[in-house]
Amino acid sequence: MKSVITVELPQQSYEITIAPGAVDDLGSWMNRLCLGQKVLVVSNPMIFRHYGQRLMDTLTEAGFEVNSCILPAGERYKTPMSLQKIYDAALVQRLERSSTLVALGGGVIGDMTGFAAATWLRGIAVVQVPTSLLAMVDAAIGGKTGVNHPHGKNLIGAFHQPRLVVIDPQVLKTLPAREFRAGMAEVIKYGVIWDAALFAQLESSPRLDQRRYVRESLLQEILTRSCEAKAHVVSQDEKESGLRAILNYGHTIGHAVESLTGYRGVNHGEAVGIGMVAAGAIAVEMQLWSQGDHQRQLALIQKARLPTQLPPGLDRGEIVAALQTDKKVAAGRVRFVLPTQIGTATVTDQVGSALIHKVLATLQ
Amino acid sequence: MKSVITVELPQQSYEITIAPGAVDDLGSWMNRLCLGQKVLVVSNPMIFRHYGQRLMDTLTEAGFEVNSCILPAGERYKTPMSLQKIYDAALVQRLERSSTLVALGGGVIGDMTGFAAATWLRGIAVVQVPTSLLAMVDAAIGGKTGVNHPHGKNLIGAFHQPRLVVIDPQVLKTLPAREFRAGMAEVIKYGVIWDAALFAQLESSPRLDQRRYVRESLLQEILTRSCEAKAHVVSQDEKESGLRAILNYGHTIGHAVESLTGYRGVNHGEAVGIGMVAAGAIAVEMQLWSQGDHQRQLALIQKARLPTQLPPGLDRGEIVAALQTDKKVAAGRVRFVLPTQIGTATVTDQVGSALIHKVLATLQ
Ligand SMILES: NC(=O)c1ccc[n+]([C@@H]2O[C@H](COP(=O)([O-])OP(=O)(O)OC[C@H]3O[C@@H](n4cnc5c(N)ncnc54)[C@H](O)[C@@H]3O)[C@@H](O)[C@H]2O)c1
Ligand SMILES: NC(=O)c1ccc[n+]([C@@H]2O[C@H](COP(=O)([O-])OP(=O)(O)OC[C@H]3O[C@@H](n4cnc5c(N)ncnc54)[C@H](O)[C@@H]3O)[C@@H](O)[C@H]2O)c1
Repeated sequence: MKSVITVELPQQSYEITIAPGAVDDLGSWMNRLCLGQKVLVVSNPMIFRHYGQRLMDTLTEAGFEVNSCILPAGERYKTPMSLQKIYDAALVQRLERSSTLVALGGGVIGDMTGFAAATWLRGIAVVQVPTSLLAMVDAAIGGKTGVNHPHGKNLIGAFHQPRLVVIDPQVLKTLPAREFRAGMAEVIKYGVIWDAALFAQLESSPRLDQRRYVRESLLQEILTRSCEAKAHVVSQDEKESGLRAILNYGHTIGHAVESLTGYRGVNHGEAVGIGMVAAGAIAVEMQLWSQGDHQRQLALIQKARLPTQLPPGLDRGEIVAALQTDKKVAAGRVRFVLPTQIGTATVTDQVGSALIHKVLATLQ
Repeated sequence: MKSVITVELPQQSYEITIAPGAVDDLGSWMNRLCLGQKVLVVSNPMIFRHYGQRLMDTLTEAGFEVNSCILPAGERYKTPMSLQKIYDAALVQRLERSSTLVALGGGVIGDMTGFAAATWLRGIAVVQVPTSLLAMVDAAIGGKTGVNHPHGKNLIGAFHQPRLVVIDPQVLKTLPAREFRAGMAEVIKYGVIWDAALFAQLESSPRLDQRRYVRESLLQEILTRSCEAKAHVVSQDEKESGLRAILNYGHTIGHAVESLTGYRGVNHGEAVGIGMVAAGAIAVEMQLWSQGDHQRQLALIQKARLPTQLPPGLDRGEIVAALQTDKKVAAGRVRFVLPTQIGTATVTDQVGSALIHKVLATLQ
């Protein structure tokens, strides 16, 4: 089983390879790209313990001069401070313009490493080796990179496309179940906004809440279709001037929930799950989509055992206020992505605060 | 007197306007660009005291909602920490994707503000209002932005083109003479590598060391020709994959000298002056250019009262070692820009350490 998807871009296209065991082949994939000799692998302690040596081995065998930079795990370390540690490692290894950073980890490692690559010597190559489901289907593709500001997620960042994305579904075996479910939220998102057939496949699976309950062939299919959706949207709208905004489905309220719980109580995918339920309910209220489709979405989110209610203690007023600082604000109005039927969505800034309040009340 | 030069770029071209009194017209220039309402002006205390109010007034009159962020002056504050202060101000003002940063200052303010704009919300607009001669003819044009790492200049950065550059020669009246001379180093650079007519004009001026000894019409001419040179090179090679490298003339050894004196003893332009003398001497040794042209260059650098010798106490071995960490290293070999005749230069990585040592000895 192997899928190769191309992200077509005017400047430099790149491939996403999805294949069991791919971690051991990274060296030869990278050799084809004519990169410089120096490679710095960025990861966190747990992930590096599992897969670091295999990655270092394949890169060394392929002739690269490899070092590693291990950062503490967790969203709360996605900061300018961690970035500084990558810069320091880059300086010690004397990375050159032709050198490459390899991100081995989830979206946190991927986003930070991508941003470090975007800004070291005004831009060096980055290769993404995503290890969480969320990073595989979303964060590792499309070139959005960044770190958090104490008062807002991803406020500091840059667009910087990877030169290669290598996905090894086998590494998901060690991914905690809760993280698997979080990634499933993004997979469901693609079903709702882009790919009705993917949505139906997800409906056909008896369970979606843990890696081991999902057949290997279905997993390969889920990864491939999700990456195709993301690659397609990114190809058409690299810098998010239009179409790409639909990928923010579930993220408007999701981000607010995440930031108000201090990036702790609720993880990213869970917040997106809640955000999709909220956006779905808003769309129903605005008569943009049917109650029936909304129920199908709700059922899928529940099958992934993702939360569909706001975490206790979170104030609705606070959420509405937090939406104002979100990057997706245009001229003071909050922009929402709303589904219109399974497989299609639209973007609007016509959602009033009163409606948001009303819908959030039903999620408490 | 007014000159308008266009920097032609595939993505987004922009104009450089050079006109006495231009500071008071910034609002109307910016209005033509259809930018968002929010503007954050970044400057330092001294410069803002001189020109800040006029800038705030023209922007307010033009209908913008303007705030300011004042950072401490000096190269040693060109750090991730100062960047953080711009980010904080951006957050307080709730800058949106359509908002604009305006850099009012020398190259330090310009580089930091440009980098903050490159990375806030993954990129917002920046307008450069350079106030030092060096920033007018060099730093403000071309989209190189960044901050320093404790162990190397500009190691952290991004390419991010301004939307507009507005140059008011009158602000040079308050520029300290030493800073004027530093900028003159870059002007001489354009004469040597690009524009023999500019070089001849500089030779025709009785003095070049202070603003008040340079006729207004010659100053306008110097600014225009220098900006044209930079704009031309940048248009042909935005990301420095080839031609643009010639702009680093004098900068290879210059950067090493600057960094080894802790960015204090010698300023940027002075370091470039020394670097040009060194590069010229290397070119003579390699029989790439004539002793006669080398002497003409030396005379011009001396007329600008720029140093032509290494600062006392600086070790040659240290300089050669420092060259290795420079961004311009390719596969371990140091790249030099060398003049071939007045108005033309070439790039080479064929300069051995022994020759560098030998030439540096003559500068001590
Ligand atoms: N750049 C983008 O386009 C984009 C898109 C979506 C999300 N993101 C970002 O991604 C981040 C979330 O990503 P995430 O959910 O992967 O979080 P994460 O990177 O924190 O990973 C989640 C947890 O799983 C662990 N983990 C990951 N892979 C593992 C494996 N194979 N085995 C064992 N443990 C493993 C990690 O150590 C971590 O503790 C957020 O910061 C978000 O902003 C970015
Ligand atoms: N981005 C680029 O392409 C590029 C090119 C060359 C240099 N640079 C960078 O530019 C920086 C050097 O720029 P600089 O020489 O302008 O230094 P600077 O910004 O520190 O300015 C020099 C001094 O002059 C003062 N000053 C500036 N304008 C003044 C005015 N009109 N009146 C009174 N005082 C004034 C400043 O406060 C400062 O003290 C370096 O950091 C260098 O790396 C960048």
